[in-house]
Amino acid sequence: MKQDPRLLLGKPVQERILAEVRGITNSAGRIGKLVSISIGDVPEVAVYVRNQARAAAAVDLPFDQEFWGGEVTQEECKARIQEMNDDPEVLGIILQRPVPSHINVRSLQSAIHPLKDVEGMNPASIGNIVYNDVAMAPCTAAAAVELVRATGLNMEGLEVVMVGHSEIVGKPAAMMLMAEGATVTVCHHLTRSVAMHSRRADVIVVAVGKAHLIGPDMVKPGAAVIDIGINQRVHPDGTTEIVGDVDTDAVKEVAGWITPVPGGVGPVTVAILMRNAIRAYERQQAAGWRS
Amino acid sequence: MKQDPRLLLGKPVQERILAEVRGITNSAGRIGKLVSISIGDVPEVAVYVRNQARAAAAVDLPFDQEFWGGEVTQEECKARIQEMNDDPEVLGIILQRPVPSHINVRSLQSAIHPLKDVEGMNPASIGNIVYNDVAMAPCTAAAAVELVRATGLNMEGLEVVMVGHSEIVGKPAAMMLMAEGATVTVCHHLTRSVAMHSRRADVIVVAVGKAHLIGPDMVKPGAAVIDIGINQRVHPDGTTEIVGDVDTDAVKEVAGWITPVPGGVGPVTVAILMRNAIRAYERQQAAGWRS
Repeated sequence: MKQDPRLLLGKPVQERILAEVRGITNSAGRIGKLVSISIGDVPEVAVYVRNQARAAAAVDLPFDQEFWGGEVTQEECKARIQEMNDDPEVLGIILQRPVPSHINVRSLQSAIHPLKDVEGMNPASIGNIVYNDVAMAPCTAAAAVELVRATGLNMEGLEVVMVGHSEIVGKPAAMMLMAEGATVTVCHHLTRSVAMHSRRADVIVVAVGKAHLIGPDMVKPGAAVIDIGINQRVHPDGTTEIVGDVDTDAVKEVAGWITPVPGGVGPVTVAILMRNAIRAYERQQAAGWRS
Repeated sequence: MKQDPRLLLGKPVQERILAEVRGITNSAGRIGKLVSISIGDVPEVAVYVRNQARAAAAVDLPFDQEFWGGEVTQEECKARIQEMNDDPEVLGIILQRPVPSHINVRSLQSAIHPLKDVEGMNPASIGNIVYNDVAMAPCTAAAAVELVRATGLNMEGLEVVMVGHSEIVGKPAAMMLMAEGATVTVCHHLTRSVAMHSRRADVIVVAVGKAHLIGPDMVKPGAAVIDIGINQRVHPDGTTEIVGDVDTDAVKEVAGWITPVPGGVGPVTVAILMRNAIRAYERQQAAGWRS
């Protein structure tokens, strides 16, 4: 069966980015390793880590997996991260989420040196985005921007409606799209009418975490719809299904482009993580950390 | 003559904030001093510094003025700022702008320790705003938010259109208003039609630097208009006048509230700087820098 041309797939974008990254890792010398930290036993983390490890292998980046027991203290975590900050072998640090409830994840993210913050989660990294320095942006936000770019739409003057204003997706994506010239409206749970905004948008980016929040009546014909949501649905027969924040099948009949879930933003996100690793390498070089 | 009730004046808001700050400085012990740094000879800086010194005096905060010659190097500036970071007598550092062209102001702002960054200009401070930690926000952005609050409008669901997307005003103000529950659209020079957005807004915040950009045809009846622009107009007879980005007299006939220029955002901005100084004090205490 021929692929529906309205579906904006993540795979080709992922492959293009990974090929660029591999070109750089293969010509660079010793580049160091990525370290993934999982704290406690969280089943959903295993999937992320496996995808990241696979992408790292595809671009010839060493990828270490650290598993810290659920009883580790905040202070121990911080001390170990600080050791990694000082270790020249460590190129970048990935702190898998969620973490156990006694761990303050924000504080640990702040402990990761900005030059090793390949996930772009340190407040200093986020602050740089406000200053239009988007080199190491949060991966999901950057993936959404890459997918908008993949439509070929001219970003300048583009009317974008971002639904969801989280710190790690909605707000940074909004600022990155502004930096490209888009006019961005950020809607959220207190917005009077999301539809009033989404219906006039050239591009809708949704990151809320509510299955099928966006239906066809909320989308302008021909618009691009980037769906960042990942929601698990349990059917009456007990089977489960992963769906996005957009009612993909219905919205597909209206939209010009729509990213499927799974297979849209996700594959691009992990590629961006690898691209951030290269940018970390370049910044560490520029800072005199590497020769 | 009675004051036009549609004019949203900065003075009462300034006085309220300064009174709060004075209450804290007078009950705190040794609180340290603010240091203002002016580099080179820039006439417009003198006005800012004078207003800041006056506000500091009103809240009993010591205010030192440093004047560094125009020939000072970037490295010298950085070294002196780092000394101030280490000096327990220095509560906060204010880097006056503009600076001579050979000085990289962004890099100096980054050199100011976030806990002494009373202007809220360090990328780490800006990043904290994305994370809804608005304790030390850029002063002008925070002043705009205070003036919106002064209208008494309910922030939750409020439709705000921000015109201008600068790093130190537009973007941080947009994020702070989002944090309060507003739905925010950020327009800028690439926006197809600012009027299309501004006409549906409950609140318009303008920070562009174009005299009388916003006319009465761009404002919804009853809306609040916060004018951050400061533009010098030269009349044919050679006299000059300071005007905002809004055609105040004309828009006043449509708007529910409008901040005058001068006398609107400006007086609040300097009060916010003093409030940031108190927050710096509290954070330095919490960090164990002060007893």
